[in-house]
Amino acid sequence: MDANDDGNRRIVLAARPRGEPNADSFRLEHGPIPEPNEDELVARTIYLSLDPYMRGRMNDAPSYAAAVEIGEVMTGGTVGQVIASKLDGFEIGDFVLAQGGWQDYATLGAGEARRLDPSVAPIGSALGVLGMPGLTAWSGLREIGRPEPGETLVLAAASGAVGALVGQIAKLRGCRVVGLAGSADKRAYLLDELGFDAALDYRAPDFAATLEAACPEGIDIYWENVGGPLFEAVLPLLNTFARVPVCGLIHWYNATSLPKVTDPTPALMRAILVKRLTLRGFIVFDHADLQDEFVTEIGAWLREGKIRYREDVRDGLENAPDAFAGLLRGENFGKLLIRVSDDPTVGG
Amino acid sequence: MDANDDGNRRIVLAARPRGEPNADSFRLEHGPIPEPNEDELVARTIYLSLDPYMRGRMNDAPSYAAAVEIGEVMTGGTVGQVIASKLDGFEIGDFVLAQGGWQDYATLGAGEARRLDPSVAPIGSALGVLGMPGLTAWSGLREIGRPEPGETLVLAAASGAVGALVGQIAKLRGCRVVGLAGSADKRAYLLDELGFDAALDYRAPDFAATLEAACPEGIDIYWENVGGPLFEAVLPLLNTFARVPVCGLIHWYNATSLPKVTDPTPALMRAILVKRLTLRGFIVFDHADLQDEFVTEIGAWLREGKIRYREDVRDGLENAPDAFAGLLRGENFGKLLIRVSDDPTVGG
Repeated sequence: MDANDDGNRRIVLAARPRGEPNADSFRLEHGPIPEPNEDELVARTIYLSLDPYMRGRMNDAPSYAAAVEIGEVMTGGTVGQVIASKLDGFEIGDFVLAQGGWQDYATLGAGEARRLDPSVAPIGSALGVLGMPGLTAWSGLREIGRPEPGETLVLAAASGAVGALVGQIAKLRGCRVVGLAGSADKRAYLLDELGFDAALDYRAPDFAATLEAACPEGIDIYWENVGGPLFEAVLPLLNTFARVPVCGLIHWYNATSLPKVTDPTPALMRAILVKRLTLRGFIVFDHADLQDEFVTEIGAWLREGKIRYREDVRDGLENAPDAFAGLLRGENFGKLLIRVSDDPTVGG
Repeated sequence: MDANDDGNRRIVLAARPRGEPNADSFRLEHGPIPEPNEDELVARTIYLSLDPYMRGRMNDAPSYAAAVEIGEVMTGGTVGQVIASKLDGFEIGDFVLAQGGWQDYATLGAGEARRLDPSVAPIGSALGVLGMPGLTAWSGLREIGRPEPGETLVLAAASGAVGALVGQIAKLRGCRVVGLAGSADKRAYLLDELGFDAALDYRAPDFAATLEAACPEGIDIYWENVGGPLFEAVLPLLNTFARVPVCGLIHWYNATSLPKVTDPTPALMRAILVKRLTLRGFIVFDHADLQDEFVTEIGAWLREGKIRYREDVRDGLENAPDAFAGLLRGENFGKLLIRVSDDPTVGG
């Protein structure tokens, strides 16, 4: 698992997938280990974060961020260790957080790397609970969900990197939390480890009735991570003035065709009007200004043991494409990380 | 037109309409002119307001307000004159604003009537620009639309009671305003009288292209009064962080069946996510606390001639059902009022 043997391996976008990404979507390329120019550093990737948003970057549809070009290294957050530096403030051996991409070594310029202190928290957590997924959960609740004590929050993908944190923060804010997850072990985790009030199987035939029973006071916040038929079951249960932070739509990321349905728009818009709902989309980088406040609050909760998190770590850059396809099918259990090279902070 | 000749005529809900209300939906009944009990007054109706929301009250579906029962007088805002009073603070001859309903005479208890000063503004304006439609426009912009100078606002039903005010307020706040209306005279009114920047025919075959051309900087606020296919044309033009106050859905109020379509939900939700849109429903009575501030600001603009309004006044309570059906088809031009009896403040 020492990446040096192969030079710099890079996984590039080979073809834009139609539907689910597969072996044809990616190509593993080899190159030399880069040397830094002036005002650059080179970091060896330790952890690569895999996240659902990456599916959107594989399309060339307009979005909030530029698409990955064909032949370009796949984008992705990384934690690495500096192996060469001509950049002020960074020395060999420093741990850094960056958008290093799906490769063994990344060249990073000024402003592209943030130094991590491994004595404060495990370095991998900068990609999860203390990183982008964590800020997503924390800021989306603060800015849109606005949980109040006694309210009910429902979320899908509840054991995922964002979902597990959304639910735990809502519990700490005094909410009833109902999590949806597709496997029995994930549901047991939500109940036993994270302290959710209910954990439901959204694939069960009686899901709508089960959801209603689990939300006797209706739903005040629906954290939209998923899209698709879940929202249909949620909509009738939403209370007046309910909030729906729209954070992700993984259900549709691979969709290639859509069914013919009786137009659902009137029912949706009527519910928005009559119940005075708020549906609001957000992207984590709109809330970068909240980063310090986020780390302060979540960091304290972590130290006090009030927040737990789970990582699903797979070894080997070459396994990133399969792991990513599995992520889109909900096969991960916790924050999905690829260990691209050994993490020296934990031995190994 | 002196209502006294016929006692108290009342228009009651005869049958819940399926689709458009028609002659079978209503029944004209006759009764005696009521006498007030202790702590009541009786007012002769001068103006009855007809508003799209009344269509919803004719259904028994759950909504934000109770349905009108079969055989019950149709609900509606009224301006009347007190003819008998056993209620402290009200004397014969006083003008009052109330939910008097579709009838010649209304019995009103404590807290059900607000006295109007006819020297401040024409009494009928308490049902329009200074009343519920006015507060709808003003508060919806303030709380959800949040217009900023240089932004573009698009609204349908633009010459209606709410729409004309939304557009004028947005102009006063420095926006570019594009109004949609179904007839050439309404569009001329929007441009020439209200000073909108563009007025478009939403029924034109090239509407989507015309709308795009009229919004070279995209759309920051879409005031949703209508629902239906207009929103489809608006959605691709919405800018990042655009706001959609959902105020009315008149397009669907009479809908009895819905077409089969390719599911539009994914495109809508994706737009909400990627563009960080806010869709938020509201009902004017959520904002009753803003009434004083609203009257202060709009009243000043009216006195300064910065706000104009137009009323479409029809004579005779018996014509309310036809006028109401026409309102739902967009046949009114300005705030629709029924003159149930003579307005003594303007002679007659």
